[in-house]
Amino acid sequence: MVQTRLVMKFGGTSVADMERIRRVARLVAAEVARGHQVAVVVSAMAGKTNEMVAWTDAGGRAAAGLPESDDEYDVVVASGEQVTAGLLAIVLRNMGLAARSWLGWQIPILTDDAHGKARIEDIPPDALIAAMDRGEIAVIAGFQGRTPEGRITTLGRGGSDTSAVAIAAAVQAVRCDIYTDVDGVYTTDPRIESRARRLARISYEEMLEMASLGAKVLQTRSVELAMSQRVPVRVLSSFIEPGDASDDTGTIVCDEEEIMEKRIVSGVAFSRDEAKVTLFGLPDTPGVSSKIFSCLAEANVNVDMIVQSKARTADHANMAFTVGRRDAQRALELMRAAQAEIGFEDVEVDADVAKVSVVGVGMRSHAGVAQSMFKALAEKGVNIQVISTSEIKISVLIDAAYTELAVRALHAAYGLDQL
Amino acid sequence: MVQTRLVMKFGGTSVADMERIRRVARLVAAEVARGHQVAVVVSAMAGKTNEMVAWTDAGGRAAAGLPESDDEYDVVVASGEQVTAGLLAIVLRNMGLAARSWLGWQIPILTDDAHGKARIEDIPPDALIAAMDRGEIAVIAGFQGRTPEGRITTLGRGGSDTSAVAIAAAVQAVRCDIYTDVDGVYTTDPRIESRARRLARISYEEMLEMASLGAKVLQTRSVELAMSQRVPVRVLSSFIEPGDASDDTGTIVCDEEEIMEKRIVSGVAFSRDEAKVTLFGLPDTPGVSSKIFSCLAEANVNVDMIVQSKARTADHANMAFTVGRRDAQRALELMRAAQAEIGFEDVEVDADVAKVSVVGVGMRSHAGVAQSMFKALAEKGVNIQVISTSEIKISVLIDAAYTELAVRALHAAYGLDQL
Repeated sequence: MVQTRLVMKFGGTSVADMERIRRVARLVAAEVARGHQVAVVVSAMAGKTNEMVAWTDAGGRAAAGLPESDDEYDVVVASGEQVTAGLLAIVLRNMGLAARSWLGWQIPILTDDAHGKARIEDIPPDALIAAMDRGEIAVIAGFQGRTPEGRITTLGRGGSDTSAVAIAAAVQAVRCDIYTDVDGVYTTDPRIESRARRLARISYEEMLEMASLGAKVLQTRSVELAMSQRVPVRVLSSFIEPGDASDDTGTIVCDEEEIMEKRIVSGVAFSRDEAKVTLFGLPDTPGVSSKIFSCLAEANVNVDMIVQSKARTADHANMAFTVGRRDAQRALELMRAAQAEIGFEDVEVDADVAKVSVVGVGMRSHAGVAQSMFKALAEKGVNIQVISTSEIKISVLIDAAYTELAVRALHAAYGLDQL
Repeated sequence: MVQTRLVMKFGGTSVADMERIRRVARLVAAEVARGHQVAVVVSAMAGKTNEMVAWTDAGGRAAAGLPESDDEYDVVVASGEQVTAGLLAIVLRNMGLAARSWLGWQIPILTDDAHGKARIEDIPPDALIAAMDRGEIAVIAGFQGRTPEGRITTLGRGGSDTSAVAIAAAVQAVRCDIYTDVDGVYTTDPRIESRARRLARISYEEMLEMASLGAKVLQTRSVELAMSQRVPVRVLSSFIEPGDASDDTGTIVCDEEEIMEKRIVSGVAFSRDEAKVTLFGLPDTPGVSSKIFSCLAEANVNVDMIVQSKARTADHANMAFTVGRRDAQRALELMRAAQAEIGFEDVEVDADVAKVSVVGVGMRSHAGVAQSMFKALAEKGVNIQVISTSEIKISVLIDAAYTELAVRALHAAYGLDQL
């Protein structure tokens, strides 16, 4: 890592108009004044991407049987970040700083050809490093790249976070600062629990669990990339005053080993975007589960939690699983179509459920975390419908009406309000 | 030339929204149905370029001492054509046609590094020709290119016409069709003379004189390029019904030799964007003219017509010259500042003048054209203030109030209403 190199990333809300772009420029200038060589990654001005997506839809991209137009969708949509990068470079120069814009094809950010959701394959860093070494701020259009054949690609929604982390890895930056509309990662959603505390640090693994559980601060892909490339990421507010950022600002997402104060549980996450599908009276014979889940997988329906239980009669079982809420109707239709083949008696969908989870790397070495969770929920009368666990996470599915109650109970049970 | 290859160009008004882009796609499809291999050059959606120019101005591009930001201006502004190209490709595919977008850097359209007003230096045609040969419509973002170093450039306002002609030359197209909001080149402005006729053909030289005289159908640069590259250009209306274009549609701008019916005068042009500066009582000594015009040239004020005449006294002269109306105040200030050095007695500016011109390659071989002009104007009581001529053009400066009268008189005098 090169201590002086820093990547800063600003999302669409932070660059929504010229006034905000000037504000971003002042934040960048403050880091330059501190002695950093800065690469800034920017998104499209808020609203612009949606405007262009609407045009491509009106043009027929979304029409049945035309997924191949995603390459042209990328040509249209990538223009949004191009505009912001040029504008920010102009503003920085107007402040007397050396700066130039870099588009995905210029660096180049090489990706595969999965248009609309491309993956970064390589970023030759020499041109960027040379520019930064001669004191030029590199203003980079996020969200975009190009194929080896020279066609424009986009990384999909939220891809600018991924661009920023990949650039940070390529230029060996000391850190990637993601400026966003929150001032860090919290122990839980402060809108539900006012005693939620900002975490000074959180491990990549915990952040991944938090993100995938609905705490939408960082895109999952960008955290995965940061973890594999060992890039420290800082989440901080774009409303901070230029020059005010200190070591204590925001939340740093980093390696577990770099976190001094050990906690058993770091946060309580929740997601209301769940639906539970229950199959009653399944034949208790081998191969039944396989039939159910291959049927769903073929239709691209992702299944999350699964629980199987004995039915009243000895030779039958019930099975419940969860899917994303918008897939619920689809899952129901798929199951009904396969009812004869699978051989269950009845199927039921319940969209009135929520998933609540406690996350923490400390669970690996501490027993009794699940026990505390179940006890805390039981004391509040919260019934657990399904349970699933990973090494650093325990999730329960509950009646959606109990979501806030459960979140607050768990936040208190693990002492998260007293960090 | 390859008989089946055709370039079609559509300006900002023709692609202002998705409905009009669909209309453009139908016009393209009609040419494909006729057996053409088509390259389409498009401008930004009407209004988009202005929006982006305003942003770059707000960012400080226009601030004093920052012309170097024109490279970033180009990055921002070039995104407009990129969007249109992608959208048109999507719509064409949705109609079942093979199509893909090409940006300036992809072809590449190589230019010099005069950002904001770059000149095309080379267009390697192989990639485009290969695409067209395999039956793919090439949808090209106009107005843009890239430097050999890989930075985006723009060709300046109206540059899409130039892009289209340059592409036509590069792929050896049989013709470059420029779709615009008029249905061809007229003998004069039909809003002034209702008997104005559409010309079936006009020579490059005549078109250049017409364009530079204020008949703003084609950009001068694109006509110059068409002339030097011998690309036939057709001007036609974008409101034509798809499939309705025939050999008789629009006006073809071509080599003089390809025009069968010879005319002495092809058209009457006029410009109200003129101002006359008169210097009284100049010393009648060598070097005075040189002082006047070098002073104006250094300040980038273009001078058009010039006339010098004896004053009442033998050793003094008067001089009158014309400048663009927006330069009039500037010219006046420059003259006043240099009054002592030049040594004239008084200076006067008259912005209430118009330039009226007759244009025609036939003048080269026909005497008496000027004579007819002066006679026609005299008969209507129009006083001529200044005269200038070129090989194929005679221009007179008159009182602006007589503009329409003079245009109609000349249109009739040369029989232009009886083509």
